[in-house]
Amino acid sequence: MSIPNTGYDGARLLADLYRLRGFGTFKTGVHRPTYSAVDMQSRQWLCERMREAGLEPEIDGIGNVIGRSSGGGPKLLLGSHTETQNEAGWLDGALGVMYALEAARALNGRAGGGGIDVVSWADEEGHYGSFLGSRSYIGELTEAEIDAGRNRYHEQTLRGALAEAGLAGKPRIAFEPGRYVGYLEAHIEQGDDLEARGLKIGVVTSIVGIWQYRVRFEGVQNHAGTTRMAIRRDAGLAAAKLAVAIDANFPQVCAPRSVWTVGRIALEPGAASIIPGGAEMLIQFRDAAPEVLERLESTLEAMVADADKGPCRAVLTNLSRSVPKVMDARFQAALAAAAEVHAPGLHQHMPSGAGHDAQMLAKVMPAAMLFVPSIGGISHHWSENTSDEDIMLGGVVMTDAARALLVMMQHG
Amino acid sequence: MSIPNTGYDGARLLADLYRLRGFGTFKTGVHRPTYSAVDMQSRQWLCERMREAGLEPEIDGIGNVIGRSSGGGPKLLLGSHTETQNEAGWLDGALGVMYALEAARALNGRAGGGGIDVVSWADEEGHYGSFLGSRSYIGELTEAEIDAGRNRYHEQTLRGALAEAGLAGKPRIAFEPGRYVGYLEAHIEQGDDLEARGLKIGVVTSIVGIWQYRVRFEGVQNHAGTTRMAIRRDAGLAAAKLAVAIDANFPQVCAPRSVWTVGRIALEPGAASIIPGGAEMLIQFRDAAPEVLERLESTLEAMVADADKGPCRAVLTNLSRSVPKVMDARFQAALAAAAEVHAPGLHQHMPSGAGHDAQMLAKVMPAAMLFVPSIGGISHHWSENTSDEDIMLGGVVMTDAARALLVMMQHG
Repeated sequence: MSIPNTGYDGARLLADLYRLRGFGTFKTGVHRPTYSAVDMQSRQWLCERMREAGLEPEIDGIGNVIGRSSGGGPKLLLGSHTETQNEAGWLDGALGVMYALEAARALNGRAGGGGIDVVSWADEEGHYGSFLGSRSYIGELTEAEIDAGRNRYHEQTLRGALAEAGLAGKPRIAFEPGRYVGYLEAHIEQGDDLEARGLKIGVVTSIVGIWQYRVRFEGVQNHAGTTRMAIRRDAGLAAAKLAVAIDANFPQVCAPRSVWTVGRIALEPGAASIIPGGAEMLIQFRDAAPEVLERLESTLEAMVADADKGPCRAVLTNLSRSVPKVMDARFQAALAAAAEVHAPGLHQHMPSGAGHDAQMLAKVMPAAMLFVPSIGGISHHWSENTSDEDIMLGGVVMTDAARALLVMMQHG
Repeated sequence: MSIPNTGYDGARLLADLYRLRGFGTFKTGVHRPTYSAVDMQSRQWLCERMREAGLEPEIDGIGNVIGRSSGGGPKLLLGSHTETQNEAGWLDGALGVMYALEAARALNGRAGGGGIDVVSWADEEGHYGSFLGSRSYIGELTEAEIDAGRNRYHEQTLRGALAEAGLAGKPRIAFEPGRYVGYLEAHIEQGDDLEARGLKIGVVTSIVGIWQYRVRFEGVQNHAGTTRMAIRRDAGLAAAKLAVAIDANFPQVCAPRSVWTVGRIALEPGAASIIPGGAEMLIQFRDAAPEVLERLESTLEAMVADADKGPCRAVLTNLSRSVPKVMDARFQAALAAAAEVHAPGLHQHMPSGAGHDAQMLAKVMPAAMLFVPSIGGISHHWSENTSDEDIMLGGVVMTDAARALLVMMQHG
């Protein structure tokens, strides 16, 4: 696979991806938490690759690595993130950043003008917050939020981590209005939809909204041997009943691609001989359509109200409601057209069930995303993988779509 | 209330109970974990009270406090335990030990002979093991088990705790065959059965068997946004379904006083955005009839086998099966007769839904138990309580039953 009149090199792309995997290798995956020593080493390594590619690299005060192109003409911003979840996969984020780097190497300085800037957003994976890097870039991350930031898994503060990483006091790079015609991000699908359909490329239509809730049950904690069944107010049983009710009722009101998850059920005190006096559940659902999200929410509200009529009190609290983000139609079309050239008939439009930095960038410029298949749909696990062939095919489509967009923007 | 020809003093009993409450006061309850500094202080205090009562006190190598009477004639062993659950009630255990002390003061050395030995068994509450003190006394606690013992809530080893408490190297007192005609233990009911029926005294017929199980579910951990509902293998949902199935099916096969509890449901990894790949449940049930326990077990086995046919693997592991212990008929009759004298019509026979040291003592001598009401049925919580009147009434019945048994044993 090649793209005429460009310097695209799929083998070079693959080799760099494998080199990046060497930073924090864990089994066949990677352990590279945000701001860890190995994460910072990988950011320095990325700066060197950017410099070799003729880009001007900079690591900013939140850890974003941005490599700017120097030529004239319209510019596209391409990227993703390079840190990983703990003991997780080697492609989640890294793939999109290496695609961006290869696109810059292939396209920048070529006849026709325009250029690719490359970015690795810090902490998309949320070790210290939520989309820290891309939210900082679009002006949504306050100093107060940085002050309050804490690691999700251990005691380190965000300020402490930034200081240890040598980032304290550095300026944070902000979005430059007018510099870019748009943003493109490639990512592994993280699901099995492409694989199940035998497809190679997904063009993302929208990034789903994620609505999250906590349900708190209050019963009466008591002795598991001496308390008659008839008078029990078992908060654990109330929680289990709600989980089963969700499983029964959501399919009646959901859309074909809606997903929902009870990720956590905690009983208090959680001992064999004590009737749980309290229980807490985390519930989330996702869909690309606001009206579907609203329907799922009303259904959940009705079920919790129903649970509250039982022996335990049940209180529903919304934790967050992210707005679905529709991807730019022209950019989607460019990705689909490039896919049809390099993988005819093997691509589809599809929503993204996971959140991505692209949903932040979409607030300030046209944005779109490309997916490549995940083997077995596995992600957030060290065994996450995509075949070398699929990786290289995705790189071609991404680079060719970026080329076409630059040409289009230059001429129209 | 008084008992002719004895030194019984209800006010003295109550005053000592309140003094014991002073060791580790927590709100209106007590925090006195086994072998803690305050627990050891309370054991020293108990030794002093025993000495004042004419008993020969000894703290043995597992923390049991035994006060021996010196007179001739038949002897009864009376007692319970003085340590508490964490931040728990002031009467659970303490009541039975103070009843025993008052019975010794009331009866020992009186005309008619015979006497009361008083005991506080160590760690009935299981901070470091299971019925450590009473099992040590009847010869069921091995040195290897002590070597392996660890605190249920923190890192301390049993050997370390015994050393810190000054008990390392002390001999453990063993049951002396022939010394006792039997064992009596008083305890708060810990349920609301007496209160709900307006009764004051429960004569325990048997201590229920407790059968405990772990169910382990194995599903597939995956991304909560990108994994289609149709292909999920959600171990948390499988666990919730089993909890609801138990609630639906056990009432069909249980006996009137059977109880069952799902005390713990843990989802792995337990995060909002991750489909639980594993789940673990703790299930227990209790009944006084072995055939009922067996019926509940087969029902549980069938439900887990059914769950195993779903998308997740389900494996049932039995953790323990304690044998129901029938209390001695003559001792029950003596307790009921004394109850009829002091609380005519206000007593009943009933099983004990909780485990007690009496079930260990019942293996080596005739044993029986008396219950007093628990306000609101609350126990294992600092708000646990019994009215002063009910406490004093129970003390009279206990002492009078012990008196009657000593007389009976002397003459029969």
